[in-house]
Amino acid sequence: MKTIEWLGDRIKLLDQTELPLREIYLETADYKEVVSAIKQLKVRGAPAIGIAAAYGIALGAISIKVTDRESFLNELQTVFSDFAGSRPTAVNLFYAIKRQKQAIADKANATDIKQAMVDTAALINREEEKAMSDLSKAGADLLKDGFKVLTHCNTGQLATGTSYGTALGVIKAAAEQGKNIMVYVDETRPLLQGARLTTWELLQLKIPFKLITDNMAGHFLSRGQIDCVIVGADRIASNGDTANKIGTYPVAVLAHENHVPFYVAAPVSTIDSSIGSGDEIPIEERDPEEIFQIRGVRIAPQNISALNPAFDVTPNKYISAIVTQNGIIKKPYKRNIKSIFQEGH
Amino acid sequence: MKTIEWLGDRIKLLDQTELPLREIYLETADYKEVVSAIKQLKVRGAPAIGIAAAYGIALGAISIKVTDRESFLNELQTVFSDFAGSRPTAVNLFYAIKRQKQAIADKANATDIKQAMVDTAALINREEEKAMSDLSKAGADLLKDGFKVLTHCNTGQLATGTSYGTALGVIKAAAEQGKNIMVYVDETRPLLQGARLTTWELLQLKIPFKLITDNMAGHFLSRGQIDCVIVGADRIASNGDTANKIGTYPVAVLAHENHVPFYVAAPVSTIDSSIGSGDEIPIEERDPEEIFQIRGVRIAPQNISALNPAFDVTPNKYISAIVTQNGIIKKPYKRNIKSIFQEGH
Repeated sequence: MKTIEWLGDRIKLLDQTELPLREIYLETADYKEVVSAIKQLKVRGAPAIGIAAAYGIALGAISIKVTDRESFLNELQTVFSDFAGSRPTAVNLFYAIKRQKQAIADKANATDIKQAMVDTAALINREEEKAMSDLSKAGADLLKDGFKVLTHCNTGQLATGTSYGTALGVIKAAAEQGKNIMVYVDETRPLLQGARLTTWELLQLKIPFKLITDNMAGHFLSRGQIDCVIVGADRIASNGDTANKIGTYPVAVLAHENHVPFYVAAPVSTIDSSIGSGDEIPIEERDPEEIFQIRGVRIAPQNISALNPAFDVTPNKYISAIVTQNGIIKKPYKRNIKSIFQEGH
Repeated sequence: MKTIEWLGDRIKLLDQTELPLREIYLETADYKEVVSAIKQLKVRGAPAIGIAAAYGIALGAISIKVTDRESFLNELQTVFSDFAGSRPTAVNLFYAIKRQKQAIADKANATDIKQAMVDTAALINREEEKAMSDLSKAGADLLKDGFKVLTHCNTGQLATGTSYGTALGVIKAAAEQGKNIMVYVDETRPLLQGARLTTWELLQLKIPFKLITDNMAGHFLSRGQIDCVIVGADRIASNGDTANKIGTYPVAVLAHENHVPFYVAAPVSTIDSSIGSGDEIPIEERDPEEIFQIRGVRIAPQNISALNPAFDVTPNKYISAIVTQNGIIKKPYKRNIKSIFQEGH
């Protein structure tokens, strides 16, 4: 199973909205289909969005017919804008766009730029692969043999397009070390990434787990049944405040209240050093229909209103540590995140 | 619309599992169908369970053929046991059974006992009607004009079999006082009592609301968008610890963390003065299939395991006040709950 695969002139994506019931792949050379796939969450998870967008930009570049540099760059600008407008919260998307823009600078003509877009996408993919592998192994030390670990949303191969992942990568790496780990999987409403995707990945990894509804996490935390919580991130501010899937903040507060460690696992590319705190992170508001229906089945009356923020922000005080490929960051986050960047990224 | 109606020789129940899509009534003279309806949540909500069980016991008594007192009481014992085994958490069920047992004591023969069962059920129904109306009006003072109020699960007419309710009764009473109230409705997984039932009742009451998933409550609480939380209760210990629908405890902790008042509304019959704390409240564990499927649609892989506690316990320290028909109880709960009982119940 590969979440994202580059086939030379087109991209192949595993459609995550169809899982776990069907494994359907989307194969396309049309960058607009990649933009749609990101919007519709066919590909999702901050690192996977970054990789898919990088390859999508390459597809967009390849499809441009004009050859003079200025006209070419004009059309490429539209490709960049289409991806930038696909989803607002995950910083990896903007990181991929920035890297692609930087790759243009010293290229003389359209042909070279096209090649540079493909090469940069492949480079980002390789970098993320290594980052996830490194962070998973670094984080595995936090999970002791016999630990019961709660996680929210989906943060494994599917979410990252790599062979480990962030939070789920850490769990995988701990299991590979021979530790017995039991995972409590939050179903993660409204789109059920936990119930649909994390369960599916854990079955493949043969790691035991129990599925729960999001509102049960507090009960199990309060009864001492969970040893630690580990989640991914969509964007981390320079002070450690973390935007992640809606429902993460409640788990962090409940873990804190019950003296259970709460870890965030994310590659350094998820840290947005340009913003001072979580207040500056834009929160995507999605279609209320996602609340009213589950897989096409109506669960609420007609003609009512709903709110559907896709993310929430967990203030740094609730976070016990942030696991990155460059090591485990602890408090004070502002200072320690700064030094991670200074050490070179 | 009547949630529970006694028709002289049979009972009519609105099947809450079919709402909001269909309004289907169950009409039966067979007490075992009432036991099943309680188990299957066709009738649900602590006060409604109490009333339905009281009438169900009357149906069971009426159907007994033997007439000598001892044999009659023997068979009636089976009826009591069947109801006692239907759901373990709601204390109103056991309160109804206790009241019916007390009503037997001074009755000489089967005919008189049958009549006493019917009369006691009707009495409990009238008492609950008055209790809900009184507590709703008492609690309405807590909700100011313009308040945004978060609630969890369903606590109105459907849950109580009365014309007000507990938490939703308080909201209804505040709206009747002319206050503008906006309700944030937790959908309440796994069985979606918020999305299906509370929305349906609020539409009928013409009170504006927004539906959210349970894991969004923390986000809105942290952003100052909610003025208070009010929920019902399935059992309250003598120290104020409160068992209520799974997901209540997280909301209480999140409200506390964000300095938002958290109120419990319940009739005095929900207080179990025989137990010292929430640790003694049994928590019903329901069929994991409720997690895997939503209205018959599978949302998780096959052959996985899940946990499904139906309730959690909110420690008294997170509760700002308990609204009853005898007034609003504040801390210290142990002393103040005791005096509510001493004033006569």
